[in-house]
Amino acid sequence: MIKVGIVGGTGYTGVELLRLLVQHPQVELRAITSRQEAGSAVSGMFPSLRRHVSLKFTAPDDAALERCDVVFFATPNGVAMQHARALHGAGVRLIDIAADFRLRDVATWEKWYATKHACPELVAEAVYGLPEVNREQIKRARVVANPGCYPTAVQLGLIPLIEAGVVDLDHLIADAKSGVSGAGRRAEMHTLFCEAADTLAAYGVPGHRHLPEISQGLSAAAKREVVPTFVPHLTPMIRGIHASLYARLTAECDLQALYERRYANEPFVDVMPAGSHPGTRSVRGSNFCRIAVHRPQSRDVAVVLSVIDNLVKGASGQAVQNMNIMFGLTETMGIEQVALLP
Amino acid sequence: MIKVGIVGGTGYTGVELLRLLVQHPQVELRAITSRQEAGSAVSGMFPSLRRHVSLKFTAPDDAALERCDVVFFATPNGVAMQHARALHGAGVRLIDIAADFRLRDVATWEKWYATKHACPELVAEAVYGLPEVNREQIKRARVVANPGCYPTAVQLGLIPLIEAGVVDLDHLIADAKSGVSGAGRRAEMHTLFCEAADTLAAYGVPGHRHLPEISQGLSAAAKREVVPTFVPHLTPMIRGIHASLYARLTAECDLQALYERRYANEPFVDVMPAGSHPGTRSVRGSNFCRIAVHRPQSRDVAVVLSVIDNLVKGASGQAVQNMNIMFGLTETMGIEQVALLP
Amino acid sequence: MIKVGIVGGTGYTGVELLRLLVQHPQVELRAITSRQEAGSAVSGMFPSLRRHVSLKFTAPDDAALERCDVVFFATPNGVAMQHARALHGAGVRLIDIAADFRLRDVATWEKWYATKHACPELVAEAVYGLPEVNREQIKRARVVANPGCYPTAVQLGLIPLIEAGVVDLDHLIADAKSGVSGAGRRAEMHTLFCEAADTLAAYGVPGHRHLPEISQGLSAAAKREVVPTFVPHLTPMIRGIHASLYARLTAECDLQALYERRYANEPFVDVMPAGSHPGTRSVRGSNFCRIAVHRPQSRDVAVVLSVIDNLVKGASGQAVQNMNIMFGLTETMGIEQVALLP
Amino acid sequence: MIKVGIVGGTGYTGVELLRLLVQHPQVELRAITSRQEAGSAVSGMFPSLRRHVSLKFTAPDDAALERCDVVFFATPNGVAMQHARALHGAGVRLIDIAADFRLRDVATWEKWYATKHACPELVAEAVYGLPEVNREQIKRARVVANPGCYPTAVQLGLIPLIEAGVVDLDHLIADAKSGVSGAGRRAEMHTLFCEAADTLAAYGVPGHRHLPEISQGLSAAAKREVVPTFVPHLTPMIRGIHASLYARLTAECDLQALYERRYANEPFVDVMPAGSHPGTRSVRGSNFCRIAVHRPQSRDVAVVLSVIDNLVKGASGQAVQNMNIMFGLTETMGIEQVALLP
Repeated sequence: MIKVGIVGGTGYTGVELLRLLVQHPQVELRAITSRQEAGSAVSGMFPSLRRHVSLKFTAPDDAALERCDVVFFATPNGVAMQHARALHGAGVRLIDIAADFRLRDVATWEKWYATKHACPELVAEAVYGLPEVNREQIKRARVVANPGCYPTAVQLGLIPLIEAGVVDLDHLIADAKSGVSGAGRRAEMHTLFCEAADTLAAYGVPGHRHLPEISQGLSAAAKREVVPTFVPHLTPMIRGIHASLYARLTAECDLQALYERRYANEPFVDVMPAGSHPGTRSVRGSNFCRIAVHRPQSRDVAVVLSVIDNLVKGASGQAVQNMNIMFGLTETMGIEQVALLP
Repeated sequence: MIKVGIVGGTGYTGVELLRLLVQHPQVELRAITSRQEAGSAVSGMFPSLRRHVSLKFTAPDDAALERCDVVFFATPNGVAMQHARALHGAGVRLIDIAADFRLRDVATWEKWYATKHACPELVAEAVYGLPEVNREQIKRARVVANPGCYPTAVQLGLIPLIEAGVVDLDHLIADAKSGVSGAGRRAEMHTLFCEAADTLAAYGVPGHRHLPEISQGLSAAAKREVVPTFVPHLTPMIRGIHASLYARLTAECDLQALYERRYANEPFVDVMPAGSHPGTRSVRGSNFCRIAVHRPQSRDVAVVLSVIDNLVKGASGQAVQNMNIMFGLTETMGIEQVALLP
Repeated sequence: MIKVGIVGGTGYTGVELLRLLVQHPQVELRAITSRQEAGSAVSGMFPSLRRHVSLKFTAPDDAALERCDVVFFATPNGVAMQHARALHGAGVRLIDIAADFRLRDVATWEKWYATKHACPELVAEAVYGLPEVNREQIKRARVVANPGCYPTAVQLGLIPLIEAGVVDLDHLIADAKSGVSGAGRRAEMHTLFCEAADTLAAYGVPGHRHLPEISQGLSAAAKREVVPTFVPHLTPMIRGIHASLYARLTAECDLQALYERRYANEPFVDVMPAGSHPGTRSVRGSNFCRIAVHRPQSRDVAVVLSVIDNLVKGASGQAVQNMNIMFGLTETMGIEQVALLP
Repeated sequence: MIKVGIVGGTGYTGVELLRLLVQHPQVELRAITSRQEAGSAVSGMFPSLRRHVSLKFTAPDDAALERCDVVFFATPNGVAMQHARALHGAGVRLIDIAADFRLRDVATWEKWYATKHACPELVAEAVYGLPEVNREQIKRARVVANPGCYPTAVQLGLIPLIEAGVVDLDHLIADAKSGVSGAGRRAEMHTLFCEAADTLAAYGVPGHRHLPEISQGLSAAAKREVVPTFVPHLTPMIRGIHASLYARLTAECDLQALYERRYANEPFVDVMPAGSHPGTRSVRGSNFCRIAVHRPQSRDVAVVLSVIDNLVKGASGQAVQNMNIMFGLTETMGIEQVALLP
């Protein structure tokens, strides 16, 4: 049994991680920390966990966490980097669901996150936890930077085209639509029900923190710098990301075959039949990324539709997938739930 | 392994049954029938089942179903009674998720369902599948009438008060709010998104088919006829029933203790701490019924709040629970999913 | 032209009041105050008002407000009572959309609102602004206490039965469902989209501030104390209240005729044909209260369904209706908008 | 007073047209036809219209319609072309909210709508009713083809760039998100609440009927053929279209100034301040199109965000705007409603 600790269990990625881990046959949940909720039952905050989780929140205490085999950070950005050095030194493996270790260039990170990085030496060691790209490195990783939700959907959607070298890399467009849970569980005005229901708006068009992360991944695939146009939208649903990706084709290519081949052995990427339009609900609560690829009117633009559940493949599910890989377990263990439909 | 057949897998209770059964360790799915979809892949209709269900729909064919140990009917009302006699004769156990065998009085059934009953002799044999009331009979049942969604929430909420003999039986009120999936997967005007979103209305106030079913259950508990006032409401959510139940107290009673005692050993009834207000999302996708009991201002009215997921404890989950009981399996097997929150 | 000031224009009742007043032919909008937003354009916060409202928020400044004919308070509870004395002394008429002047018994108010009342002498003078009950007094009022949203729907639904003397006054039940905008525009956890969407829960069952207000109104109609059982529910819609009201009949009565007669001359109460089930969307954005009355199975329980838009008839629309009455205008002026459906 | 008839008042564009026309000071509503509902009160189907509309549906009867000054067709595609010749011959002006007269090339229309056109001679005469482009022709029009919802949002968003000659016309991308009411009021599976809520999916990527209409409009502005990549998405909201438009810039250009200048005198196009992200709710129920223009990271891609209410500026509101222009009324008459927010 793997001894697991969670730092920050009061947000949406935290409760989702708990949902998955209590059903994982090789996990022993040891500690969940929350400074603010220390002493109160986890299931008091999330009644969905009654009869499943009997733990109480504890104050962050590296001693307890240091006895774990792996610690997940389901915290706001900037927290994991404060704890990482000590835990890493104690031989604990780390999976940060937030952004602290995602960008290999510390200066870029500091610019976009407007903070000095507290642990730059582990940035170099950290592995970007997108299994479909970095599976081998994840196996040996001591620190995994779990990808962001938008970056997961966008990279899985675009990488086959980039690797194949068949698109104009200077004008890639990622138009992404997210459910509101992507904004986290914080009392803010713009994510109130009455502000976010029955409406739709883009946000962050001048620049969003996931842009450098996406750019880093696409550039690695292209072996040159790639900066797409990335426009996120807030949509009135709880979970789900739908990335609509546009690329100008520069060479002939059987798109359907390309995607099927690229993801043939991937347990969590489902290339849909030609002509499909995947809906986000087809992955609600599941760890799948479903992708469909189109070439409208046989013209020179590829349209890729890529959907994930932002809290599962876009956060906590992918984190468990990474843990499975790191500990040599079956990659799908504990995260084979069928999507909840309707 | 239990060999399972499903008649009518194209509706919401069908896809929900599939979601649960593919994760059930003792079930071997043998056949799913749909006259209209025969030959097409189940996962073509429900992409959420891709990589989980490889079966195709087959035409209803009693021969194939007769080789199953148990057949679930996830069909509209009036279908199970057409097939029941032959399957029952072949030794197959039946669980009807629709209403054909719920009312012990055939004349009452025929009045409310406006149809002649095709198989009245099995009505007498059928067991009403509410485990919290009829567990012993379900163990030996050959035909189980799986309760309706409203009746499950209302009976579990009111029966402790009735059994204790502490309320006015002539003026019980059940004000129930349902998600739209309770109306089934049928192309009808009133359940269109634009008709059902961002609005709320009562319906069926003069009379709803679940009233005689509720009345039958409450009367059995009271050992006299009980007809509550039952008002269902359609609310803009996909899943969930919230029953708000009102009863005039006629004797002193520690309500919290009464409910905790009544359901102390029930794996799927969760009596919440005093002062709680359970939300339907705390059971979304799970088989729990969560109940809270109040006595506002210490006056003589008990208020009971009872929530279920109409497609799980109110339909397919309870059906699997009944199967587990009928076949001597652990009652919770395959239906221990944690609710999806948020 | 009536010179109008608004204190507190940044909440949902404020923006709704603006929507109505800019279309009112006899209103000249003079000032909108907000301490926090002073200096910024109203339409910057609410882009829906672009090209309709050119005013900027100003700091609260009684001098400017004192030059108005009427000042609306679209503020949290406890604000109007701070300003009322000065404005009243300056001859300005006041309409408080919050609760400061609703309860005639100051001690009761102080208990439920947990604050010392700052202006008890105007409580005695204030008129409770439910036109269907107090129209004559409103005509002469200097201070109007605009009713709460739940109290409006519940009182309009129950008063005909109470006035007619045909129901058991000791066991009235008001099961009310509200859209989320009733909670106001405040960054709070429980009204986040991801907390309030796709779920339903009761709240405040042990006691809600609208209970004493409802009780005061029903008691006045009954000429004795009446305390109903009042259970509010939060439902996943933006606007709308649906009150489902239950009363035991103690005398024979033609319910349909009773309601039609009681509201025959009311411009904003629409008694629906027998057998109707009004939906909240039928009043979305409009000042109507629609009511249907049922007697299920001809038994001794009356079921009354009463729907309003909580921001219109339950707040800002009724406030404008009161202003029209106070200033001798046509009662429907500026508030005849057709509900937005779908 | 203008005598108005409506053919097909039972859909969403019909009820929206009624909402607007009953508040129009120069309109006298003469007839609303519906073969299926003939004889029943319009307000029986749409209770929101109670006390506003006393008309009954009548059977389609050209004689009655021929006495009108203008007839609106709020019908499915293919109906207006059956009635147009007779009404036109009788001197009645026609505004078709459906698609029968939108495409100037009859062969293209017949291909996309898979029907033989019944009235091709009026196609030549019809004016495409986008006032921001064709105001002068609309003044003299006898037949107005009211634009589709997507085409309105996309054309208003892209035309300034095209007219200015500053973008790559071969790779324009229109990623559009629509509320469900755009699909009309028809009992279909895919627009059921449980199919369309809490999910998002693209549709029609291989080809959508609005593509040739958009293409025709953009080509006219460009004076050469322009075929954009157009991807519509179904989103879980009732009303609203959000078009996110992407264009590669081929010349330097002050985008903000360009848009402000182009729409300086337009009563219903609101160019937002630089840096804005308009939400669809800012136009819910109103006739505005709000547009914001961005150039992320100062690179060579323009991002235009264009929002409308699909039932107002995208259908019935624009139809009334066209009527006002045709009859020499103030263009904004009767359609100045403030958006309903929240």
